[in-house]
Amino acid sequence: MSKPVNYSDLEQARTAIADYVIETPLFQSRRLNDWLGHEIFFKAENLQRVGAFKARGGCYAVRSLRANASSVERVYARSLGNHAQAVAWAARLFDIPATIYMPKTVSAVKLQATKDYGADVVLYDDIKEVSVVEKEVNERPGHFWISPFNDKAVIAGQGTATIEAIEQMPDVPDALFAPCGGGGLLSGMWIAARELAPNAQVIGVEPETANDAWRSIQAGKITPLDTPSDSIADGVRTYEIGDITFEYLKQMDDFMLVSEQRIMYWTQWLQHLLKLHIETASAMSMDAVYQWLQQQSSPKKVMVMLSGGNIDAAMMRRIWAEDQLQEIPRL
Amino acid sequence: MSKPVNYSDLEQARTAIADYVIETPLFQSRRLNDWLGHEIFFKAENLQRVGAFKARGGCYAVRSLRANASSVERVYARSLGNHAQAVAWAARLFDIPATIYMPKTVSAVKLQATKDYGADVVLYDDIKEVSVVEKEVNERPGHFWISPFNDKAVIAGQGTATIEAIEQMPDVPDALFAPCGGGGLLSGMWIAARELAPNAQVIGVEPETANDAWRSIQAGKITPLDTPSDSIADGVRTYEIGDITFEYLKQMDDFMLVSEQRIMYWTQWLQHLLKLHIETASAMSMDAVYQWLQQQSSPKKVMVMLSGGNIDAAMMRRIWAEDQLQEIPRL
Repeated sequence: MSKPVNYSDLEQARTAIADYVIETPLFQSRRLNDWLGHEIFFKAENLQRVGAFKARGGCYAVRSLRANASSVERVYARSLGNHAQAVAWAARLFDIPATIYMPKTVSAVKLQATKDYGADVVLYDDIKEVSVVEKEVNERPGHFWISPFNDKAVIAGQGTATIEAIEQMPDVPDALFAPCGGGGLLSGMWIAARELAPNAQVIGVEPETANDAWRSIQAGKITPLDTPSDSIADGVRTYEIGDITFEYLKQMDDFMLVSEQRIMYWTQWLQHLLKLHIETASAMSMDAVYQWLQQQSSPKKVMVMLSGGNIDAAMMRRIWAEDQLQEIPRL
Repeated sequence: MSKPVNYSDLEQARTAIADYVIETPLFQSRRLNDWLGHEIFFKAENLQRVGAFKARGGCYAVRSLRANASSVERVYARSLGNHAQAVAWAARLFDIPATIYMPKTVSAVKLQATKDYGADVVLYDDIKEVSVVEKEVNERPGHFWISPFNDKAVIAGQGTATIEAIEQMPDVPDALFAPCGGGGLLSGMWIAARELAPNAQVIGVEPETANDAWRSIQAGKITPLDTPSDSIADGVRTYEIGDITFEYLKQMDDFMLVSEQRIMYWTQWLQHLLKLHIETASAMSMDAVYQWLQQQSSPKKVMVMLSGGNIDAAMMRRIWAEDQLQEIPRL
């Protein structure tokens, strides 16, 4: 397969969405840097519109439809979280009706946020019903189903977060880390890094208990999870990556796995040190950084993509169930 | 009593600490503004050095000693939280040894943070022992006890947060809200507002269960709590305000009390909407804003001082024990 997304696509996406998304700041923790002896830069996409990097890809995908399709009647998406809000928000920006499919078990706060952006929400029991609807939608002119990751415009949009982050850093990074759900964020990161920081390592991160991308890379073919994951990193429980993202994911410099305990550990520590409300999927990457730094013999500069900050109360209780702040992170 | 702190003192403080403290950003939540029909601006002092506005007053107090005292051998403070870290941090900035008194029950993370800034920490059982030490310290030349609020330099330093916030706002605010512990932050806010936003209301906020400032204002004299407070707003459980701060506190336009349940409610909602890790004492003010807005008949612009973001794991569990995000805040 030829590479379907180029750096110039990311640049186009950046221009196209500039008026709608936020150039989020980079954060550092002096104490963490002191403890580790390296410099870690955190790109705070939790402060992005709709509270996650997904706003970038969602915005660019919807805007591209508006710009290129002869008629856009309605957009559709299925998601239990950030992608739902991103498509709902982007559709309202460009005055397009949206229908979002969410599982009946979705939390009240995520449901409300999606409705607040003006979308029609359909609650489903069985994901198979939605797959049928998706096929029907894609056959109707003017109706568009927007994938959360396996879509060229979505990947280009997500890549803009990495372009910004590299530009904001005082030096070219030695390594870049991002969580992997379906792989859209990480694919965009890879494309941006190859242009702007060609010597930087690009490293993907997954929970041990939701390691479908890691398994796909090992097997050399897309390999879904055996059973649905209940990982505390709820943003990256994705069952299966896509054929477009797989082409990028298999080129990563490394792919690292993180235990549930360490995800909880770093979520507490990064909330505490950065004073940011960030998701477990975001903090998870910091454990991969920690593992990677243990192998380094000189001070490094790394960038961590904090993917989002939409967390319901039940998850906050799960994150803070035990005190992880008694053990200071040192190398 | 003549007013001991003037606006020019705040300006001097601002210049003196500019190289050390952060000009923290203002945040807004579009969704909250939509729900309430008003514009709320949040000054994010949780992103300040040491994680709280206390860095400002601590820095200015220590720097003033360095600049004005003939000899500075050592600085001292008693605190179970942010003031301890602020003095320890500021002392290290100006190369002065520091001794911090903390109760034996202090959390490991707060103890560690204070030690990390290089201070000698003395753990005490009984606060009366510390009062004896405080008197002795104040009689020794070159040794200085730094009050967390009843100190002119501290008040001037805290006031710089309000100067910045008013300058950052697109319009002059209609009202300014801050939590009241000992009253240093609020006194500084009052002084700044009288110069920069003379028509703005300045409103202090306390927990119902730690209402010593409110009671002092009602009684016309400093009135301590009957019993120590266990309010969830641990940053403002202060037993008694000071004689310097009382002069300002009694001039406030209003003083509002907030229930424990509402403190928890707004802490969850502001963490969720702003994506910031903020203390209960910070979020508490938002309930006073909500009460105040209910009395208004036209759209208002208000500023809320988010005082800090140092929260231990036990407090995070207490904050998130029940799901407050089911009930959306609307007027």
